[in-house]
Amino acid sequence: MLDLYYWPTPNGWKITIMLEECGLPYRIVPVNIGKGEQFDPTFLALSPNGRMPALVDHAPEDGGEPVSLFESGAILEYLAEKSGRFLPADLRGRYRVKQWLMWQMGGLGPMLGQNGHFLLYAPEKVPYAIDRYGREARRLYGVLDQALADAPCVAGDYSIADMAIFPWVMTHKAQGITLDDFPNVARWFSQLRGREALQKGLAVGKTLRQSTMSDDAKRVLFGQNQTATNE
Amino acid sequence: MLDLYYWPTPNGWKITIMLEECGLPYRIVPVNIGKGEQFDPTFLALSPNGRMPALVDHAPEDGGEPVSLFESGAILEYLAEKSGRFLPADLRGRYRVKQWLMWQMGGLGPMLGQNGHFLLYAPEKVPYAIDRYGREARRLYGVLDQALADAPCVAGDYSIADMAIFPWVMTHKAQGITLDDFPNVARWFSQLRGREALQKGLAVGKTLRQSTMSDDAKRVLFGQNQTATNE
Repeated sequence: MLDLYYWPTPNGWKITIMLEECGLPYRIVPVNIGKGEQFDPTFLALSPNGRMPALVDHAPEDGGEPVSLFESGAILEYLAEKSGRFLPADLRGRYRVKQWLMWQMGGLGPMLGQNGHFLLYAPEKVPYAIDRYGREARRLYGVLDQALADAPCVAGDYSIADMAIFPWVMTHKAQGITLDDFPNVARWFSQLRGREALQKGLAVGKTLRQSTMSDDAKRVLFGQNQTATNE
Repeated sequence: MLDLYYWPTPNGWKITIMLEECGLPYRIVPVNIGKGEQFDPTFLALSPNGRMPALVDHAPEDGGEPVSLFESGAILEYLAEKSGRFLPADLRGRYRVKQWLMWQMGGLGPMLGQNGHFLLYAPEKVPYAIDRYGREARRLYGVLDQALADAPCVAGDYSIADMAIFPWVMTHKAQGITLDDFPNVARWFSQLRGREALQKGLAVGKTLRQSTMSDDAKRVLFGQNQTATNE
């Protein structure tokens, strides 16, 4: 059995999508980031960076003690290895996926995180930052659009790289992006959205989310214990 | 033979350190990011995100055509697989490294990039952003310090995760961080700095760097073609 420490946000959805795509059995352990549950010592023991998602695999392949993991990118790779799916076995295919997964982890995710913060959540308007991250968001969408001009999915066939990117692209309207400007992204987005397993992944814990963006939650997320990367 | 498309910055150093640690033969292809060479079509064909480092392996393990790769995190994993070094073979050890590599790629790197931008390079002082990223930088150093309290290196033995983190920690003074506040980081930093191969990696292309931060370079890096993540 897999325990997923989870809250319904883009980084959480990456993993529920993968679990549903693979048909792996899992239990959800909610981590209410609006209430600061990511700072509980029991959670920090699993995820020392104080971020969900985290995963505990009670039946790892080596048959030993449970394996615990943090960082959505590492969890996606772990589940791909466990299931033998969505990460090609051959050298070229595997690294084609890994480089786009790293691009999502190091570029698209953090930069859309900053763009969203300054557009939606920051308590003051900061024109320099809104301009900086708005331009970077559009640049990154352009890179993705170009990659999708050459292939159905970002690294060829549907893979964990797409599962990492999709939940962030879901936020495009709130990020001030229109997919009309990125026709290949629009085509890919619409194709993936039709996948039943992906929809099931996105629906996990939908009712939990309603409490995330209360004023109290904002104080936890952006105040003294601010989390700059995981919004 | 390996061709490394490179400029002497933290993300570039990750790879020269690894190449020197493994003793793999390589050639440097300079990508002068101050002159905008990362936007040349020939470079973009290798690295569509317009970022160095990128790697071309002319003798891949499968014996086929050259393999080209972008994203420093993916390149580190590729070289670990090629050399059989600095990434444990067993499931637990491997994912322990991968999660900290992802933490560097998705957290430490991008957030120190933003902190450095607002502290050092932004043409206007933006107190909100300086405060936001300064706090996040200190939080991340605290997470690293805690990880290093339990082990000699971030994921146990010296690995590609340390090679990804070290070049960013080198910038701590410019980032407004003192290692006096993070004694485990200070111990680890001083131990790693004594490694001959790491020093050789850091010295690669040292003379190239002098031209990076001219006024012209700043216009390229932070103007119309701004690169928010790779400073």
